[in-house]
Amino acid sequence: MPTFKTVRGMRDLLPDDADMLTFVMGKARETASLYGYREVITPVIEPYELLSAKSGEEIRQRMFTFKDMGNRTVGLRPEFTSSIARLATTALKTEPKPIRTFSVGSVYRYDEPQRGRYREFFQSDFELIGTSNTEADAEIILLTDRLMRAVGLRNYAFKLGHVGVIRGILSEENVDEKTQNAVLQRMDKKEFDEAFKLIKNNECLSTLRGSLELKTDDVFQTAERIKSHVEGYCKAAESADELKSLLTLLTEGGCPVKSVEPAFARGLEYYTGMIFEVYIPELDIALGGGGRYDKLIELFGGESTPATGVAHGLDRIMLAMQMQNAAPMKERKKRVAVVPVTEALKGEALKVSQLLREAGILVELEVMGRKMNRALEDADRRKVDYAVIVGERELKHNAVVLRNLAKREQNVVEISRLSKTIMS
Amino acid sequence: MPTFKTVRGMRDLLPDDADMLTFVMGKARETASLYGYREVITPVIEPYELLSAKSGEEIRQRMFTFKDMGNRTVGLRPEFTSSIARLATTALKTEPKPIRTFSVGSVYRYDEPQRGRYREFFQSDFELIGTSNTEADAEIILLTDRLMRAVGLRNYAFKLGHVGVIRGILSEENVDEKTQNAVLQRMDKKEFDEAFKLIKNNECLSTLRGSLELKTDDVFQTAERIKSHVEGYCKAAESADELKSLLTLLTEGGCPVKSVEPAFARGLEYYTGMIFEVYIPELDIALGGGGRYDKLIELFGGESTPATGVAHGLDRIMLAMQMQNAAPMKERKKRVAVVPVTEALKGEALKVSQLLREAGILVELEVMGRKMNRALEDADRRKVDYAVIVGERELKHNAVVLRNLAKREQNVVEISRLSKTIMS
Repeated sequence: MPTFKTVRGMRDLLPDDADMLTFVMGKARETASLYGYREVITPVIEPYELLSAKSGEEIRQRMFTFKDMGNRTVGLRPEFTSSIARLATTALKTEPKPIRTFSVGSVYRYDEPQRGRYREFFQSDFELIGTSNTEADAEIILLTDRLMRAVGLRNYAFKLGHVGVIRGILSEENVDEKTQNAVLQRMDKKEFDEAFKLIKNNECLSTLRGSLELKTDDVFQTAERIKSHVEGYCKAAESADELKSLLTLLTEGGCPVKSVEPAFARGLEYYTGMIFEVYIPELDIALGGGGRYDKLIELFGGESTPATGVAHGLDRIMLAMQMQNAAPMKERKKRVAVVPVTEALKGEALKVSQLLREAGILVELEVMGRKMNRALEDADRRKVDYAVIVGERELKHNAVVLRNLAKREQNVVEISRLSKTIMS
Repeated sequence: MPTFKTVRGMRDLLPDDADMLTFVMGKARETASLYGYREVITPVIEPYELLSAKSGEEIRQRMFTFKDMGNRTVGLRPEFTSSIARLATTALKTEPKPIRTFSVGSVYRYDEPQRGRYREFFQSDFELIGTSNTEADAEIILLTDRLMRAVGLRNYAFKLGHVGVIRGILSEENVDEKTQNAVLQRMDKKEFDEAFKLIKNNECLSTLRGSLELKTDDVFQTAERIKSHVEGYCKAAESADELKSLLTLLTEGGCPVKSVEPAFARGLEYYTGMIFEVYIPELDIALGGGGRYDKLIELFGGESTPATGVAHGLDRIMLAMQMQNAAPMKERKKRVAVVPVTEALKGEALKVSQLLREAGILVELEVMGRKMNRALEDADRRKVDYAVIVGERELKHNAVVLRNLAKREQNVVEISRLSKTIMS
């Protein structure tokens, strides 16, 4: 039988990478806890209708979908928000607002694999449900800021926009929602000519075109210019106001935004308000992003429920950490190899190992049946700190030989004092 | 649009359950660390051929399989061992032995849902690769014992067997491997008549039949009786010897086995040696189980590489914890609600929140824009410990009002001393 490979787009995380992902997930959990978000775990397999309802054409086309053995059309989640919106209309329906949820796990998209992009990848996801206030949007961005700092990233910058500005202009000119989505999707890809072709109304078109020219280096000034530009488009102007308030709150929260993009859009259809992404200079893909989605929960059969949220791309965060040499400092546990001198003493070696583990020490028991010298060589190569050699002579005095492998020193130590000696 | 439900067999874990799963996963990681096992993360989606190669007919029929958009036949992993065996023939091929790996995550089987059984469920999986020694088998069982204790379970008991005894008898009588698998599978389901029908040779049949009668209350005696019974079947007798050595090591390691089952088999085809399961009296499904699989890695295109391992059913462990009231003691973080007295002070409230979070305090900022009294009522209902009220008057003196919600007391506290006051 030939050697098996992973399926294209899938990959294995070997111990060093797995530890790094576990570290980042731990920091996401820590952040969730500081901000009062509680974890929920939703299934990887969800109804296709749920996942496709408002995710946007691009993600729909790249979803892993299939029929299960009960002939149900299901999909592997491409993101968490749909599942959380489902929860908000079912199990969490009667929960008092605001609801703060946190999830972490794998998501699936059939994208062309490239650096930092896999078909199975990992996200942490925070959702704040039940309020349309700007404080909620600020909180989602601030906790993202906190996570970036917690994993050791530097020079990361937030890019901010507001879908309500463009939607506001288009709505006022009676452009239907489907066309709005198409326009936003093309703008998101910077296919502006394609986007503009979809708009028939000339005034609307010139307002939109003009809005692309508003960006300055000063984010407050940009927001102000957007507001002036859309004067007369009532909803668009409100959105520009929200953008200004959000900028103020973020500055007060200690997280200055680097850029406000008038033509910024994101791939997902469900956004209705502010949207944002976070980048480092070394990498041209976003480490995370999110925004406000005030209509999704209602669409899923719930009451009208405003909400805002963010997803962090944990694989990209790991890549960013590597690029910035922000690898986590591991609390290095002392490692001990326990080696019986003869085959007959393996039970005694096992007993000593159990004792040390009860004291919280990492023990690798010799299980290969190797002669002592070979086992010690191996322990040395593995950079184990101590070897405990269990021999007949010392056992008579309830003792073992403790060998410091780095210092190449060894002493006879009573078993009752062994764990303390190693820990000290 | 109607309310969405989870797909049949799938479920959501709400915060209390999610916290419990995270707790159990944490204990599995802790155990891994004490025994020197390092984490690897393999994909949920694997080639169908890999997953089906040696998993056994029963699991093959219940696998989630589909064609991906590249027309590859893939499956959602029903267990971890195949993926780890794949790793052993690829990325970890040149790694010095023994290799100790640990994985934790979701697995998928299209079973009929019932209590403690879902189509998506969670396992922790430990594999010890590169040695056929009994110490390795003992280690796998002892670390399972450790995990059971670590999550607070009591009265759990190990059931032990050895596939080599029955395979040894059948091999000696030239029963081919496929028939062996079928016999073991039926024995596993206690369909003994069905199993025996597959065997033509009368002597073999009577030896097998006789082996079912060997169990006594004393595990060492049972092992001894098995050995006498299969005298003359060379490999079977060797297996019985291994069982005896394993029992001795486990007793020395402080984990006495409650029963040795001569007719014990497990659903997976790849087992070649000892097999075991762990139970609590309150539940008739195993909380975990595993065994030795010395041929799987070779079959996958690697060198001949003996290995042994275990998978723990984390959902069932959670169920067992609930039945035994072994729910984890949570380290209860102090929770603080920060409430601005007026809308205009929300930026100041945000600043105070950030300060407290930097000190590691869980802060729920008022984001609903409620009047102070309503926000405080809500904080009370949520059993928040403290409310921090941010008002104009106190702010002039760089202070806020700190209210102890349980005691219904409040004081003016300087912001610079706020986190210390709350922590003390």
